Amino acid sequence: VVFPMAAAVVWRRGAAWLRSCRGNRQLPGVPRARGCAGSREVVPTCERYAVRRLPFARLAEGDVAFFERLMPGRVITGEEEVKPFNVDWLKSVRGCSQLVLKPQTTAEVSQILRYCHEKNLAVNPQGGNTGLVGGSVPVFDEIILSTALMNQVISFDKVSGILVCQAGCVLERLSEYLEEQGFIMPLDLGAKGSCHIGGNVATNAGGLRLLRYGSLRGTVLGLEVVLADGSALDCLTSLRKDNTGYDLKQLFIGSEGTLGVITAVSILCPQKPKAVNVAFLGCQSFAKVLETFTTCRAMLGEILSAYEFMDEKCMELVETHLKLSSPVADSPFYVLIETSGSNSTHDEEKLNNFLERAMASGLVTDGTVATDEKKIKASHLRERITEALTHDGYVYKYDISLPVGMLYDLVTDMRARLGQSAKNVVGYGHLGDGNLHLNITAESYSHSLLDAIEPFVYEWTARCSGSISAEHGLGFKKRHFIQYSKPRQAVLLMQQFKAMLDPKGILNPYKTLPSAP
Amino acid sequence: VVFPMAAAVVWRRGAAWLRSCRGNRQLPGVPRARGCAGSREVVPTCERYAVRRLPFARLAEGDVAFFERLMPGRVITGEEEVKPFNVDWLKSVRGCSQLVLKPQTTAEVSQILRYCHEKNLAVNPQGGNTGLVGGSVPVFDEIILSTALMNQVISFDKVSGILVCQAGCVLERLSEYLEEQGFIMPLDLGAKGSCHIGGNVATNAGGLRLLRYGSLRGTVLGLEVVLADGSALDCLTSLRKDNTGYDLKQLFIGSEGTLGVITAVSILCPQKPKAVNVAFLGCQSFAKVLETFTTCRAMLGEILSAYEFMDEKCMELVETHLKLSSPVADSPFYVLIETSGSNSTHDEEKLNNFLERAMASGLVTDGTVATDEKKIKASHLRERITEALTHDGYVYKYDISLPVGMLYDLVTDMRARLGQSAKNVVGYGHLGDGNLHLNITAESYSHSLLDAIEPFVYEWTARCSGSISAEHGLGFKKRHFIQYSKPRQAVLLMQQFKAMLDPKGILNPYKTLPSAP
Repeated sequence: VVFPMAAAVVWRRGAAWLRSCRGNRQLPGVPRARGCAGSREVVPTCERYAVRRLPFARLAEGDVAFFERLMPGRVITGEEEVKPFNVDWLKSVRGCSQLVLKPQTTAEVSQILRYCHEKNLAVNPQGGNTGLVGGSVPVFDEIILSTALMNQVISFDKVSGILVCQAGCVLERLSEYLEEQGFIMPLDLGAKGSCHIGGNVATNAGGLRLLRYGSLRGTVLGLEVVLADGSALDCLTSLRKDNTGYDLKQLFIGSEGTLGVITAVSILCPQKPKAVNVAFLGCQSFAKVLETFTTCRAMLGEILSAYEFMDEKCMELVETHLKLSSPVADSPFYVLIETSGSNSTHDEEKLNNFLERAMASGLVTDGTVATDEKKIKASHLRERITEALTHDGYVYKYDISLPVGMLYDLVTDMRARLGQSAKNVVGYGHLGDGNLHLNITAESYSHSLLDAIEPFVYEWTARCSGSISAEHGLGFKKRHFIQYSKPRQAVLLMQQFKAMLDPKGILNPYKTLPSAP
Repeated sequence: VVFPMAAAVVWRRGAAWLRSCRGNRQLPGVPRARGCAGSREVVPTCERYAVRRLPFARLAEGDVAFFERLMPGRVITGEEEVKPFNVDWLKSVRGCSQLVLKPQTTAEVSQILRYCHEKNLAVNPQGGNTGLVGGSVPVFDEIILSTALMNQVISFDKVSGILVCQAGCVLERLSEYLEEQGFIMPLDLGAKGSCHIGGNVATNAGGLRLLRYGSLRGTVLGLEVVLADGSALDCLTSLRKDNTGYDLKQLFIGSEGTLGVITAVSILCPQKPKAVNVAFLGCQSFAKVLETFTTCRAMLGEILSAYEFMDEKCMELVETHLKLSSPVADSPFYVLIETSGSNSTHDEEKLNNFLERAMASGLVTDGTVATDEKKIKASHLRERITEALTHDGYVYKYDISLPVGMLYDLVTDMRARLGQSAKNVVGYGHLGDGNLHLNITAESYSHSLLDAIEPFVYEWTARCSGSISAEHGLGFKKRHFIQYSKPRQAVLLMQQFKAMLDPKGILNPYKTLPSAP
């Protein structure tokens, strides 16, 4: 039995560890915390937030007996064993489920949902439980349907690069499987060691390769989904082009398990690049960060695979808390550029030409280049910012999409607004995708600081026609802010889709959409 | 007043011209037929096919008066003026509409639909009227809502490459506009001189650049849509990433105007490549065509932008009917490879390395390379196959997606099945996308030949889990074959979506979906 990562993480005594764990998803090269047991409990979501339990049925002994007959040995009921499935990875929300089910097949998922639908039992679909908005754990006593044992590759076609697999395959396992065959997954993210591909699709995960390979809306070719009433919807085609009717699978991509349970995925995988280069640069202003982006996109063209930026505050935190030293010093902004291509000589030449131009024209004041794969990993300061932030205190996290030109204005405005009441206000993110990660730290949680941040941050974003959730989704924690990024008409339509596909509302209740009026 | 292309095409006497026009969309370098007037009429669809008119209201004088007040001078009622909007580009279907409306704004589209919804009047949204499956013209007397005057660019951001424009912009105009700024549209197709971007999105158009830039599902970032009841749905964001709720716009992409009228589009545009190269190669078997594809994808990597194939029968037709000569002779299969990149020296080196390998290993027996842009256009034999086919007689056209390995087996099987009853059975298409264009010619239309082809071609495709419409859509002509590519459960769900979004069924009736049970 392969447990999802969450199952291996238990509690250790003391607040220090809890804090250090908070932002610490599996980072490349950093061993994952394991086996830390303790008594500090996360406050149950239903106590902390003013949520009212919807009138679903309550689990009865007969229900458990039914599931045990259906899938003997794969029904978890012990309080301690269920606990890791009840708490999210950030330890920010906690459900009170008493039952985890681990189906292995689509037929079993169908039978589970048919039963729950009939009995009016609420269900919380769960992948690797690495979400950041409380979408992957129950709010009350929803039955947890874990995809952990649905981890089989169904097929891979080396000519087309199309992979078909079950929803519970761990992203990193898929990456390893593909790399042996000269391919890569079209997405990569920090949580890859734990997250499931089904969860990635259900949350429309973004991550590091989006700039190059596009979103899952383009790379996911087919899905198999079990609907709320247990009927299976087979749209698991392995075709790049198919214009026969409406593209139903799109509705399930990014719906966070509220419209159906994704059981299998067909996805288009790119060739593994033969050469990867990384440049780490210092810029004297955000305007120069932007101009460097325009220049590098023109000169690197088709080999550009990432353009990340971070401000000097980020760098200070990484240096202070993780004792890492920056290869480039004394710049208000830093840029990480990655190229991936099929010819290392060509790629290095392109990169060098670009760097010469950038230095000569004063866009960039200092820089370093790494071509060796190990050095590249070591230089990934960018990837450890999240971790450094967790060492700085309580972190208020925002994941914002904005027109790229005004990406940093939000950080500047927030810093001015909060003044001394925040410890640090930092900005970094996927500049190439217009995605800002805005983080605010303080010694400890304070309601008045939260009031100073929200709804200001959402209103600011809405004024610039941005998105209040670029890649994390809405889940439980952000569902009531949807109106900052979507008009009322759109939200009403979403609620109609929900009511049509899941009339009893049993699938991941209290998530994604605000309660129907 | 800018008329869509169809408006400029009228009839010429005689069957010969009609036949030569049949498959002849605007081809690069070929002047479009114009001003041919005559009496030969296309048989009205409602007479040729056994379709029953649904109980919509019939147009009354008061309705026309309402529209004339709403948009004076942009209401077309004269029989001769309406005619070009009633007949599709292939001259294969013909509606009997008496009214064409040409709104300029989303507000006008809203008012039109609100009125039609209230009065139970059916509406046929129409872009450039270049569709191939009868989706763009009325079946009976539906009011034609033309987007021809909604042709304004709203904004273009040179940093992000995001274009926002009205739905009626002609694809080629947008391409020209972008090229001046160093960008290109992410899609390109033969009908670009006439087709509207709104129609492209409504039909999820594929075309020549899909292999490189992906489908519209990834590149379209936002849509503004007017729903059947006249309410406007504003999902016109210009963000690469936005995970706030369900992605409603996806439902309208490829829905052929049956769920809403697209009024504006936000789309991500790639940088204009600085270097384009074309190689034209001969292969001795389809197995070698496939192996050449795998090799070239590995060696050309990120610069590969098209991989098209055609069989020797295609080449014969192009030589016979268009008097074009092939730069490569005596091969059962031909391959056209296009590269697009940011550095011509690098690209040529990659291409030469690949060609040397392909020749040395016997994958390719003969080949030629063109780098000059004019030569490239001249060598586009591939683009004129459609035209050559129309000179060969009556053409039965199929647009099939298949797993790439078995792409040509359908052609071989069909050829064996039809024997002498067909004149030519040819195969060509976008191999890189698994998209086969299967064409069968005969001296004239014959019902018995059609019976020998259908449903055989659809059953064959379904057995291989292919799609019976890769890029053309279902429209009017193929809607009853949807079950060959989609399970019953999926079709039922589509019908539910249609009923929810358009309860009176006034939007493009008789299209896309089979009639509800």
